[in-house]
Amino acid sequence: MIKKLLTILLISITGLSYAQNKIVVFQSDFGVKDGAVSAMKGVATGVSADLKLYDLTHEIPAYNIWEASYRLYQTVNYWPAGTVFVSVVDPGVGTARKSVVLKTRTGQYIVTPDNGTLTLIAESLGIAEIRQIDESRNRRKGSEKSYTFHGRDVYAYTAARLAAGVITYEQVGPELPKQVVKIPYQKAILEGGTLKGTIDILDIQYGNLWTNIGDDLVKQLNVKVGDTLHLVIYQNGEKKFEGDAPYSDTFGEVAKGKPLAYMNSLMQLSFALNQGSFADIYKIGSGSDWSVVVSKK
Amino acid sequence: MIKKLLTILLISITGLSYAQNKIVVFQSDFGVKDGAVSAMKGVATGVSADLKLYDLTHEIPAYNIWEASYRLYQTVNYWPAGTVFVSVVDPGVGTARKSVVLKTRTGQYIVTPDNGTLTLIAESLGIAEIRQIDESRNRRKGSEKSYTFHGRDVYAYTAARLAAGVITYEQVGPELPKQVVKIPYQKAILEGGTLKGTIDILDIQYGNLWTNIGDDLVKQLNVKVGDTLHLVIYQNGEKKFEGDAPYSDTFGEVAKGKPLAYMNSLMQLSFALNQGSFADIYKIGSGSDWSVVVSKK
Amino acid sequence: MIKKLLTILLISITGLSYAQNKIVVFQSDFGVKDGAVSAMKGVATGVSADLKLYDLTHEIPAYNIWEASYRLYQTVNYWPAGTVFVSVVDPGVGTARKSVVLKTRTGQYIVTPDNGTLTLIAESLGIAEIRQIDESRNRRKGSEKSYTFHGRDVYAYTAARLAAGVITYEQVGPELPKQVVKIPYQKAILEGGTLKGTIDILDIQYGNLWTNIGDDLVKQLNVKVGDTLHLVIYQNGEKKFEGDAPYSDTFGEVAKGKPLAYMNSLMQLSFALNQGSFADIYKIGSGSDWSVVVSKK
Repeated sequence: MIKKLLTILLISITGLSYAQNKIVVFQSDFGVKDGAVSAMKGVATGVSADLKLYDLTHEIPAYNIWEASYRLYQTVNYWPAGTVFVSVVDPGVGTARKSVVLKTRTGQYIVTPDNGTLTLIAESLGIAEIRQIDESRNRRKGSEKSYTFHGRDVYAYTAARLAAGVITYEQVGPELPKQVVKIPYQKAILEGGTLKGTIDILDIQYGNLWTNIGDDLVKQLNVKVGDTLHLVIYQNGEKKFEGDAPYSDTFGEVAKGKPLAYMNSLMQLSFALNQGSFADIYKIGSGSDWSVVVSKK
Repeated sequence: MIKKLLTILLISITGLSYAQNKIVVFQSDFGVKDGAVSAMKGVATGVSADLKLYDLTHEIPAYNIWEASYRLYQTVNYWPAGTVFVSVVDPGVGTARKSVVLKTRTGQYIVTPDNGTLTLIAESLGIAEIRQIDESRNRRKGSEKSYTFHGRDVYAYTAARLAAGVITYEQVGPELPKQVVKIPYQKAILEGGTLKGTIDILDIQYGNLWTNIGDDLVKQLNVKVGDTLHLVIYQNGEKKFEGDAPYSDTFGEVAKGKPLAYMNSLMQLSFALNQGSFADIYKIGSGSDWSVVVSKK
Repeated sequence: MIKKLLTILLISITGLSYAQNKIVVFQSDFGVKDGAVSAMKGVATGVSADLKLYDLTHEIPAYNIWEASYRLYQTVNYWPAGTVFVSVVDPGVGTARKSVVLKTRTGQYIVTPDNGTLTLIAESLGIAEIRQIDESRNRRKGSEKSYTFHGRDVYAYTAARLAAGVITYEQVGPELPKQVVKIPYQKAILEGGTLKGTIDILDIQYGNLWTNIGDDLVKQLNVKVGDTLHLVIYQNGEKKFEGDAPYSDTFGEVAKGKPLAYMNSLMQLSFALNQGSFADIYKIGSGSDWSVVVSKK
């Protein structure tokens, strides 16, 4: 009898150590001025008060699926396997896009509408498995009666149940083919002495342009500090900028207001103006519409 | 002896499962640029490092008690029973308003100055009990010597002690009559074929007007998509807008810049301009000063 | 045998109570629009999912070390002993500044570049011990290969390991002399009937000026409500404002737009305009460059 009790005790204590990590990380375009994010966390806490709930960001520009995809790409791999992400940037709420949970090859989960949000993470970390949320089972009780706030009633709820071990990954719903809705964009390539790629994102504080062209491709082109690069920027195929930019170690190597090329903190080719905003002055944006062609002069 | 130990162990382990949920959720008009919110969380963590501390929002416009009340109304019911909220929007700090802890009929606690902040939650979730904070016992040690930052030294401190089970709800202080200071406002009513109500809040991102008139009243008036509603908006009884707005399913049903009526995500009657900001263009605000009168044409 | 098990159980349960508090609090100038803060928290969670991760603020103006120092000064002492802070405001990233962990006399830890960030906390709470981070041991695995994001790969990682008890404080690295890099500024003094000090910070919402002159010095000068103070403000020794300000209890005691002196919530001498922004109208800033000289008329 005592041994039995001890066994139960030991299992329960050991169990604590080996359970899932009980972490949920939220991303959205809701901002934090109203109660929407807090309502999602309330629903998650209602599933299990043992969860730890964190934020990626809630400042994704409204409906900007590309940026949602990029922020996941920038962040997910720094969190341990078992972490469950919720991303709610959902211009098509109420339409036919699927609600899914993707498991990356590195073991993190992402709960999201399959509307392009998974574009970059599917490529960078890979798809181990993807399942469609069965809303008949994975939906907050009582939420069927009225308007459904999917972020709260389905995504936060399902993420919390998965993170807390209330459901297994299999119980999310049926497995889907290992593919996601992808936003088309120019992948980084080196082709006949020319680098092509996309302006993934702006370094907002300074207006610098960060491309998806990695340092490996730049090395293949044999670019060295001091070389001059020729840069053409297109929006949906229409030319928006053309000019030269020396490849530099520090911004001070060019005159004030002049363009330069450099390697950013993610080791990706980037463009800036010395003491100026490239994005503002030349009206350059970021996302899948914005491509670059770079060659050595 | 061994049995005794086991009993103690079992109680302590079981105790962990059945204890309060140890969640505190903070709201204020402090913003997050300085250390005020963090100081509140530090004091709470000093009470018990086992607490989990979350935010509703700290972007309530300065001294806007109505909006504090609305955000609680919008959020509290999504958190489980036992959750302790702290709301600090307190223009009357240092004056005679009472510091209280309200327990809702659904089991959440709200720690706040009783200055109108509880207006909407008292009506929607109901008052199970309300107690005045006995500051002689529930005040951070050492804080008597100087200026008191009530949010930190009384509210966060008391909330943390309640959430952590250091004090019982009874130990907060003496019970008060089940009533709170209420901000007067036009409740949603249907009267002689006319709907009356308040513009609770602006959907800030788009400038839409959200009223407190629920879909049940709209149904009672027998409003159907395609009907035209006549809308008059008053600020403190003074007319600020009068016009027609078709009751619509989608914004595209009216010309650009024209008003329309629709049901928002909380199932409350709302007004918008197609591709424009109703609030900006007609200088409409929200809160208890702003009432609407709506009839069917 | 059973006794042995019980002992182990008791130790493990008791151990839970007496372990470090497993709290990490983050501060930076990163903002929360991108994934940088979340990546830091991901790395910390990877060290131990038991940690609780909070924020001081991430809205420190870019590269403003003085304000980083001030926010720590304003906040750290409200958190319990054992709390580990990470502060990343690091204009000199990649240069020779040391990466350190300071232990205050009150038992909190601060992980930061030693670039002036510790100026005020070293004076207010005192240095119990300071150690340089040994990056050969305290650096995220895999991060050596490329660009190092110190905030994530060294500071968040080391803070998490310290907070979780993976390393002891001694294992951070070698002890340093008990001194930190200090930003020079005018300390609060009373000298020949004149108060001298620094404008520590602006009360941003209202544009008021908060100095580092405490109420003890003001009392020593025997200033009473109704007295008129003469105020001179300098930036780097150059006069920027000179005028009179009555020492007041409430802002309404002077005419609209006129200056007044008062004691702020931290019990420090402050200056404001009645219904106006002192900072905006007279172009006054804050930080180590901004000093004040105050005398009684």
